[in-house]
Amino acid sequence: MPLTLDQLNTVPLAEAAQQLDGLYEHSPWIAEAALAQRPFTSLAHLKHAMTRVLAEGGRDAQVALIRAHPELAGKAMVSNTLTAESTHEQSKAGLTNCTPEEFAKIQQLNAAYNAKFGFPFILAVRGPRGLGLAKAEIIATFERRLDNHPDFELAECLRNIHRIAEIRLNDKFGIEPVLGNDVWDWQEKLSAHSDPGYAERGELTVTYLTEAHRACALRISHWMRDCGFDEVEIDAVGNVVGRYHAASPEAKTLLTGSHYDTVRNGGKYDGRLGIFVPMACVRELSRQGRRLPYGFEVVGFAEEEGQRYKATFLGSGALTGHFDTAWLDQQDADGITMREAMVHAGLCIDDIPKLQRDAARYLGFVEVHIEQGPVLNELNLPLGIVTSINGSVRYVGEIIGMASHAGTTPMDRRRDAATAAAELALFVEQRGGAVPHLVATVGMLEVPNGSINVVPGRCKFSLDIRATTNEVRDACADDVRAELARICEKRGLHFKLEETLRAAAAPSAPAWQARWERAVASLGVPLFRMPSGAGHDAMKLHEIMPQAMLFVRGQNAGISHNPLESTTSDDMQLAVDAFSRLLDQLAAES
Amino acid sequence: MPLTLDQLNTVPLAEAAQQLDGLYEHSPWIAEAALAQRPFTSLAHLKHAMTRVLAEGGRDAQVALIRAHPELAGKAMVSNTLTAESTHEQSKAGLTNCTPEEFAKIQQLNAAYNAKFGFPFILAVRGPRGLGLAKAEIIATFERRLDNHPDFELAECLRNIHRIAEIRLNDKFGIEPVLGNDVWDWQEKLSAHSDPGYAERGELTVTYLTEAHRACALRISHWMRDCGFDEVEIDAVGNVVGRYHAASPEAKTLLTGSHYDTVRNGGKYDGRLGIFVPMACVRELSRQGRRLPYGFEVVGFAEEEGQRYKATFLGSGALTGHFDTAWLDQQDADGITMREAMVHAGLCIDDIPKLQRDAARYLGFVEVHIEQGPVLNELNLPLGIVTSINGSVRYVGEIIGMASHAGTTPMDRRRDAATAAAELALFVEQRGGAVPHLVATVGMLEVPNGSINVVPGRCKFSLDIRATTNEVRDACADDVRAELARICEKRGLHFKLEETLRAAAAPSAPAWQARWERAVASLGVPLFRMPSGAGHDAMKLHEIMPQAMLFVRGQNAGISHNPLESTTSDDMQLAVDAFSRLLDQLAAES
Repeated sequence: MPLTLDQLNTVPLAEAAQQLDGLYEHSPWIAEAALAQRPFTSLAHLKHAMTRVLAEGGRDAQVALIRAHPELAGKAMVSNTLTAESTHEQSKAGLTNCTPEEFAKIQQLNAAYNAKFGFPFILAVRGPRGLGLAKAEIIATFERRLDNHPDFELAECLRNIHRIAEIRLNDKFGIEPVLGNDVWDWQEKLSAHSDPGYAERGELTVTYLTEAHRACALRISHWMRDCGFDEVEIDAVGNVVGRYHAASPEAKTLLTGSHYDTVRNGGKYDGRLGIFVPMACVRELSRQGRRLPYGFEVVGFAEEEGQRYKATFLGSGALTGHFDTAWLDQQDADGITMREAMVHAGLCIDDIPKLQRDAARYLGFVEVHIEQGPVLNELNLPLGIVTSINGSVRYVGEIIGMASHAGTTPMDRRRDAATAAAELALFVEQRGGAVPHLVATVGMLEVPNGSINVVPGRCKFSLDIRATTNEVRDACADDVRAELARICEKRGLHFKLEETLRAAAAPSAPAWQARWERAVASLGVPLFRMPSGAGHDAMKLHEIMPQAMLFVRGQNAGISHNPLESTTSDDMQLAVDAFSRLLDQLAAES
Repeated sequence: MPLTLDQLNTVPLAEAAQQLDGLYEHSPWIAEAALAQRPFTSLAHLKHAMTRVLAEGGRDAQVALIRAHPELAGKAMVSNTLTAESTHEQSKAGLTNCTPEEFAKIQQLNAAYNAKFGFPFILAVRGPRGLGLAKAEIIATFERRLDNHPDFELAECLRNIHRIAEIRLNDKFGIEPVLGNDVWDWQEKLSAHSDPGYAERGELTVTYLTEAHRACALRISHWMRDCGFDEVEIDAVGNVVGRYHAASPEAKTLLTGSHYDTVRNGGKYDGRLGIFVPMACVRELSRQGRRLPYGFEVVGFAEEEGQRYKATFLGSGALTGHFDTAWLDQQDADGITMREAMVHAGLCIDDIPKLQRDAARYLGFVEVHIEQGPVLNELNLPLGIVTSINGSVRYVGEIIGMASHAGTTPMDRRRDAATAAAELALFVEQRGGAVPHLVATVGMLEVPNGSINVVPGRCKFSLDIRATTNEVRDACADDVRAELARICEKRGLHFKLEETLRAAAAPSAPAWQARWERAVASLGVPLFRMPSGAGHDAMKLHEIMPQAMLFVRGQNAGISHNPLESTTSDDMQLAVDAFSRLLDQLAAES
């Protein structure tokens, strides 16, 4: 019979410890120490308590825990071998039925891994959805993690151990993240649509108004109907808009949503999570036949990433009245104008101005988004409260020196553009690190047509500076520009620097941020406030109404714009729960 | 009536000063001060004395001299305007007959130049051959120099002023660098042959055994016959070999030569100068019907640059018995093996071993080469004595960190491969500068597929380290590798580093270096000793016989492996003269 949280909170400590036995391999001390913090308001609360115990246990205890695990490679079997699987979460691993080549590969990876790290490779083989990872995924993960720094890999093993414990805990309590699984499955199904050239390689790319993009819009709209939205439409720029009516027609509306387009070879969750989480909420409301005292509008924005055309935030921009008609003449890589693409898709360009929302009719805008960063992952926190979307400024630049022969040009006669760029990159790194919540990055760095035996005459670079306030951002940009001038003056070089993007900071509306905080706290999840380093549709809506965002933890150090972008259905379940609590709060306020 | 050096050396100072009037625009003080050093052993001696006077005159005097020149742009005329040209060396300038567009362009460049530098643009418009630069060349030079650093551009103007003075001095003395002009013209004619894809763009590229390469070999062989070589052949690897017999058949032979292949989009002088200078010497010997007491063998090496195949020093390697038959299976970019290319060209691969020279039959190897560096140009010296060909080592490397979102990854959570590479590049620069005649270069630097908004997860780089001794080179390489490991350890990254080339230092044979020194000194040219930072065919011959090299000044800061590579026919004349003196010395020794 499954455990209940009530039981766990009330039975004697020893008995509770007994109930949690086996969560961590041969390490009952972790659950025992966590149980000192009873009562727990939720399983999420308990899980986090256990991660804290291990984090505070120190490195020796952590390594011992890792070493207490059997080697995953030991479970690999060639297809004609049969054996009993040890535990449930591993029985779903796909390491049985290996070909002899796969088996050899796994043994070889295992040897290299042990040689490098000195502890066994740990992977939560049931995966983020609990369905088990395919053999190819396991092998690819093994290969990839072999490249990690030892400190990072240690932490990655611990995170996998916590994930295994989470799955075992769910099993003990007989619970499943049903809504999280649904959200997961929607995203998985939607990822079947990908642009030509990418789809063939199994890569996800959905850019504005391609066949795949239009298929996504249609599927989202059908799922919205299935959820019980009262009105569903694909609007004049391709946004998918679902409306769940208020109890009374004159009530204002809460707006939410995120984008369904992707970067090239991107992840399945960036944007889309913020469409499916509120859809799951509406489905529950609809199932319950419940009406809110306000309207609820969920928008799948057609375009945010600026991949096919240079217009970004096209979808949310249409709602704020900032759709720039000059965009219509932009051409994609094949010379197709945006106007042609829209006409081809059957969109009515003349209707775009009608999409502008009257802010007076809206309560505000909220958005759920995968973090796209390492912070929550590292802190073992499933959710984060966004305090501000950082203001950003971007530049592309070039330092021009004089190319010369690497063998014949004495060191004191050089005008080396690359070492100048190197000085700049280190200054940018140091300046960015000098202020909390400021980030400064040289993401592109290249000596064009560089040769091994030529002193670089040119070096191209990019700059990306972001901060919670415009002032902090601009002070950094000014310092970087001054340092660039100083470096070039000192070295006898010159430079070009072109600003390519400037976006104002969008601080969260305090009342809306507070609603997210109460929602998250009510789930027993520790509160964690953080700025959003990435731009989001909420930045656009910020121009006309109050907004606040909720972040969901990403796995794999929060990697994003990458096929490795991931989060678990457990975390998605928490996001759905948090959103439902926010809706409830707002209903209670009305 | 032309002046003579005897006159100049013996007349009263005031009269001598009068004779040199007009060499430097409105600045008779330069020649006057130089004349205090009479007697001069050569015009080269006098020219260098004047450059020293100006160098020691200080910046104010230098700027005043530049400002004393009329603006070149003032001489530009649209085609229907007629005016008298001021001086002979400018009458050959091509700025008359401008189209209105060219005229407007020149005026615009002139305004930008004055605004940036505050002095007029100076160009020796009669050019390195004295025949005048084409309008397009003048405009391109104007544009290019606008990019220079002010300090460098000041020096470049002074160098052009010295070149104008040199031309005026030649006019006054009624002399022409006849042999230098011939060497110049051979190089110009040979540059008409260029590989497909480059020829169409006016670029010079001659790689091993292309049609253009084989045409070059044939032309060189014909010119050798015209010069009076007794035997001329194209050998089994494509070297063009000319032999000028000794007075007696049992005499040993002096070997010289350089390569006729080029890098892609290279210069006309790299390599080829070292073939044509000794050819001019042989032509003079043949004209005089003079035999030397030793044989003289001039080789145009077929391959040194390693452009089409990865084999380098293929031509000189065949002479030292180091032709590696494994090279024959290498493929070029089109999949053509070296063996196929050689068979197609009619070369007899089986004969390659016969090319190996018996060192006992040779006196030694000497080589003339353009400096390919800025040193002689900056010092206003036409010739340099090579003390050693630097030993070198090359690596390609990669730093591996973790790519992450530039907006969402806090500065203290990054594993930025580019800033690590930046630290390394600055260390390499500092370490290279810490020891005389050591150079260390990061020539290639690139974040592969870098994005403006992604923290670099990988950064590729190259290393090139060269020194006069293997020990100095290796100590630097060891330090760089240790620093790379330290940086990666500190930052939690890892790296790959692959050695791609290692060449031992080749110090000049003292007796042969001394012969070059005496030859140069006898021309009245100040002696300047320097290592060769670049590798040359002499490095290969060094393996079997004593060798020493002579460098010829390059213009444009000594740029090489570039279409701007250049030297004057006056400097080439000095190289022919120095080589002739060396041949004479050796004859006198016998």
